[in-house]
Amino acid sequence: MRPAEKHVGVVGATGMVGRELLAVLESRRFPIASLRPFSSGRAISSVKFRGKSLSAPAPSLEALSCCSLIFFASCDEVSLEHAPALAKRGVWCLDDSAAFRLDPAVPLVIPEVNAGALSRDQRLIAGPNCTMTPAAVAAAPLHARFGLEEIRIASYQAVSGAGKAALCEFLEHTKSLAPLLAKGVFGRAPQPKAPKAKALPRSAAFNVIPQVGRFDERGDSSEERKVAAELRKVLGLPALKCSVTAVRVPVLRGHSLAIWMTFSKPVTPRQARTTLQGAAGLALHPEGDYPTPHSAGGKEPVFAGRVRQGAHERELALWLVGDNLLKGAALNAVQTAEELLRRGWL
Amino acid sequence: MRPAEKHVGVVGATGMVGRELLAVLESRRFPIASLRPFSSGRAISSVKFRGKSLSAPAPSLEALSCCSLIFFASCDEVSLEHAPALAKRGVWCLDDSAAFRLDPAVPLVIPEVNAGALSRDQRLIAGPNCTMTPAAVAAAPLHARFGLEEIRIASYQAVSGAGKAALCEFLEHTKSLAPLLAKGVFGRAPQPKAPKAKALPRSAAFNVIPQVGRFDERGDSSEERKVAAELRKVLGLPALKCSVTAVRVPVLRGHSLAIWMTFSKPVTPRQARTTLQGAAGLALHPEGDYPTPHSAGGKEPVFAGRVRQGAHERELALWLVGDNLLKGAALNAVQTAEELLRRGWL
Repeated sequence: MRPAEKHVGVVGATGMVGRELLAVLESRRFPIASLRPFSSGRAISSVKFRGKSLSAPAPSLEALSCCSLIFFASCDEVSLEHAPALAKRGVWCLDDSAAFRLDPAVPLVIPEVNAGALSRDQRLIAGPNCTMTPAAVAAAPLHARFGLEEIRIASYQAVSGAGKAALCEFLEHTKSLAPLLAKGVFGRAPQPKAPKAKALPRSAAFNVIPQVGRFDERGDSSEERKVAAELRKVLGLPALKCSVTAVRVPVLRGHSLAIWMTFSKPVTPRQARTTLQGAAGLALHPEGDYPTPHSAGGKEPVFAGRVRQGAHERELALWLVGDNLLKGAALNAVQTAEELLRRGWL
Repeated sequence: MRPAEKHVGVVGATGMVGRELLAVLESRRFPIASLRPFSSGRAISSVKFRGKSLSAPAPSLEALSCCSLIFFASCDEVSLEHAPALAKRGVWCLDDSAAFRLDPAVPLVIPEVNAGALSRDQRLIAGPNCTMTPAAVAAAPLHARFGLEEIRIASYQAVSGAGKAALCEFLEHTKSLAPLLAKGVFGRAPQPKAPKAKALPRSAAFNVIPQVGRFDERGDSSEERKVAAELRKVLGLPALKCSVTAVRVPVLRGHSLAIWMTFSKPVTPRQARTTLQGAAGLALHPEGDYPTPHSAGGKEPVFAGRVRQGAHERELALWLVGDNLLKGAALNAVQTAEELLRRGWL
């Protein structure tokens, strides 16, 4: 039975995640009667959907109220302004911003992990941070079998996760070092003179930057705090011991994670591979092979590889890569909407 | 008192580490009567030292025997062929290859950490792997105070650590993606079509590669095994629990490490900062600041920053960057030779 087609809004449709959302809605044939793209509030711009150019005006409560489902792919402020009021009026609001993720009344959902958190009466639903998503998808089935107690994550995050301005700056800086590239390596290994960065805390060209967001008084970055808090919420493990080092790397798309998970029970890499082989939303590389941003970028699943024993018999080391704009954002939101359709709530 | 000048040989003088060695010997005014550069065995090439061009012939036992000190900056095979015989004849051999590092009879030395391992009678001395060096320099003073029990390392390794062919390939691939850069970011975030890699296991251009060396049957790469085994030896902790994930990143020089260290005693970031502030060979960034490959590349110390509480009260998280060709290789060897001079052994 084909579900009835929906009136769908996309706020922030002209941004990096917004454009992915339109592409995912199209490629997954989400049942859409009308699509209304909105900007994040500034200039009117246009986007393409199903071959047509659509104008994306600033969002208004009136225009948004005509939708039965709205994807928010903008900043916290825009979501805070519109989403709660619309959800109260019965509009399903799938929010990719960080504004409501830790609100106890708002479900934070990765469908493969905690679809049970969805409720017919809570129409504002948050999608998780793009860095924690791969970790949660891999941790959930392992936790169910071995009991997750501690997690340590070092991230290798693509520049597209920082938005369009950051990506443009990064490409500009990489280009500006082209004379160095043209010269190649004669004599000593070259060390580029770093261009001044504005959109990122340091230049990402031929560099790695251990700062994603602002530092708090404990020295954690906002990204590190988000990953830890959202993992605890999505996995339902408020006491999970979690330490994250979030690092920006010169990659266009695809967040990679080096993870150590400590369990209450002993676990072998073979047991872990068996568990991960059947895990929803996860594609496990064969032993000796592994995903990279090149292989995983632009694809839907979370990719896992290099499943090894960690520092002791209750610990696993894993390597994960997920597309930060897809499973880390747009795809997860569309999958959540598909789950609402399946339940007949939308 | 100025020490008598030495006859110094450099084997592998035309390679990446060899050229750094010549530069470091020059900048640190190592007392040299004559410098004899050698290739790694293939074609005769030439290098510059103190403004003069010197030819670098293939090494022979006869030519090498004229030196009182030889730096080996070549592959394992070349060191295995020449170093033991020369050391027996009384020539000090400082070996940067991996050939002898785990030999119980050979001291593996980072002068700031374990100069005590040097012995007048053992003239073959190994220098450590470039990835473990920053970890050891930071871990040693913390271990002395808090008792190191476990260590987890995720590395962000520069391409120059893989040698000249890898660096050339990486720059070539980055250049080949220039059309993408010129186009900039219109519409969706670009995903480059990965060029085929030969010198590295995958293309490093806009990518990260969780493979440094070959995998063994446990799934660990040779780099990961080296880091763990050498850390245990240099720190004198044979039972240290150690788990390493070694990752190549698109950086020219400077290896970065996200580290978690677990101690037998509780430790606060403040206590750790106090300990690290006075540590030999280490430069600690102020709170809220941190080193990157751009800031640390081409410099001598190991740089530390982001000293934070880890997953519990006995654990610290740290961010380290060290130049892989300097402290990770050439500089460490010259500092070891300087220690021999200070002791009057050379």
